[in-house]
Amino acid sequence: MLDSKPSVLIIGLGLIGASLGKALRHAGTAFVYGSDQQSNVPEVALTFGVIDEVVENLANLKEVDVIVMAVPVKAIASVLTNINHLLPTVKVLTDVGSVKGAVVKQVEEVLGELPAYFVPGHPIAGAEKSGVGAANVELFDKHLHILTPLPQSSPAAVDLLTQLWSSVGADVVTMDVERHDEVLAATSHLPHLLAFSLVDTLARESDNREIFRYAAGGFRDFTRIAASDPTMWHDVFLTNQDATLKILRKFQSDLAMLEHAIETSDGELLKTVFHRSKSARDYFTQVLEQREKGVSFSAITDYTP
Amino acid sequence: MLDSKPSVLIIGLGLIGASLGKALRHAGTAFVYGSDQQSNVPEVALTFGVIDEVVENLANLKEVDVIVMAVPVKAIASVLTNINHLLPTVKVLTDVGSVKGAVVKQVEEVLGELPAYFVPGHPIAGAEKSGVGAANVELFDKHLHILTPLPQSSPAAVDLLTQLWSSVGADVVTMDVERHDEVLAATSHLPHLLAFSLVDTLARESDNREIFRYAAGGFRDFTRIAASDPTMWHDVFLTNQDATLKILRKFQSDLAMLEHAIETSDGELLKTVFHRSKSARDYFTQVLEQREKGVSFSAITDYTP
Repeated sequence: MLDSKPSVLIIGLGLIGASLGKALRHAGTAFVYGSDQQSNVPEVALTFGVIDEVVENLANLKEVDVIVMAVPVKAIASVLTNINHLLPTVKVLTDVGSVKGAVVKQVEEVLGELPAYFVPGHPIAGAEKSGVGAANVELFDKHLHILTPLPQSSPAAVDLLTQLWSSVGADVVTMDVERHDEVLAATSHLPHLLAFSLVDTLARESDNREIFRYAAGGFRDFTRIAASDPTMWHDVFLTNQDATLKILRKFQSDLAMLEHAIETSDGELLKTVFHRSKSARDYFTQVLEQREKGVSFSAITDYTP
Repeated sequence: MLDSKPSVLIIGLGLIGASLGKALRHAGTAFVYGSDQQSNVPEVALTFGVIDEVVENLANLKEVDVIVMAVPVKAIASVLTNINHLLPTVKVLTDVGSVKGAVVKQVEEVLGELPAYFVPGHPIAGAEKSGVGAANVELFDKHLHILTPLPQSSPAAVDLLTQLWSSVGADVVTMDVERHDEVLAATSHLPHLLAFSLVDTLARESDNREIFRYAAGGFRDFTRIAASDPTMWHDVFLTNQDATLKILRKFQSDLAMLEHAIETSDGELLKTVFHRSKSARDYFTQVLEQREKGVSFSAITDYTP
């Protein structure tokens, strides 16, 4: 697939960055340099087989083919200022952020333009654990990787990036930046907001010492995402405001309808909504089962409610 | 523990009823009669080792020590009319419904009083699968079973019921009916409503064919409970209206506060809520881990936010 083994610099060796490094090395498809804000992390990463070479000071690195900024969305601008000297010879600059519009904006502001080698990306993968110690060589296997190429992005850059992510098992799809931020607002950002909000509502009840002790498995599943990193999610909501608010308001309006149905004992409406929802949820389960079997994204059957 | 092996009639051999029958037989602590609205189910239950004896027609059963009504909340009244002849000699009448106030109301209406042998109950256990085929001998092991004895309930009835549920591994706790319905509204009914509502909101988006294809594991966990039985949940919301509406409105008001924080870029408020929520969620994880290790309910450390 790849003509020669490209060099990849991963900046930020958290769960995503470290897993990508480990997976690329495992696949034998890249030589991996690793850098992190915390000075001891790259050495740990080297020990864990996550990277081939530690980059202590980015200024000392002369040239690299691909740069992956695996940092929180709001940290992109400061990362860019540290890699300016590498950009003239780079083939691909990408990221892994949950919001794409805000990343594009920072690149344009710092670099003064959107270069042809810049291709934003977002792996739809995660885990409960975080940090370099949680690096998982299979994290991206059979998972979607969404690329959001810009009009300026060169086909060669998109192609090289697609090959790299495919080499670690990811199912690479493309969509435009705005659509990505809407889809993720609905399927990820809103659910996280609801989970954080519900757990906080219950925790602040005067009888909080008791209430969680009665909760069961369903509550555990429902609130698992409320254990995610607060800082990362703070960044997501502040950088994807419009799309999050749009779907949040739609949700609030639909929830108010259910509130009214409970209030007025409108059993028919409740049944209709619950059946429609169960059917959609069952469809989603099938989608995930197909994906776990390795069925590619484009081959998955569409859903008509 | 039990002086002699009591006879237990389980009416309704779905997941909960069938699992209880199987677990009691496995523990050797009861002789189990089984009855179900669907005439073929008790025979299947007998084959699966869920019951000792099929009761085709309740009218033909002469006497039994304990009756467990394992049916949806709204079906309690009609079950009661079929077991009237057994009540003069019964030691315990109980149920397993997710709402307790509505069950008590039906018993009082049908029987004209709240008898001393009546002790409502609710096992905090469940599974994704349903029906007699999903019977699981370990379903209640290390799980809470909430009894809500009434002022009229006799200590002997509470004691016998506690022994039976303890014999299948359950951690039996008691609370009053109103408190049960409030706690469950917060930790179970509201999360189910939110999951059903969110999945429905997304399914009705014009681009529903696409949106679920991009969702990941976090969304799967968050929406798992939206695959639950629509009819059962319809019953729950219509029989626990007041408590559900009360906590729902508190949630809506807290969510509106987060909406406003996103709108006004109030990062401090978002961080405060997310951190508080993560901390409460992490505490809840510890509670569940302790319970899974067999730490009893009363020994679990309390939570102070």
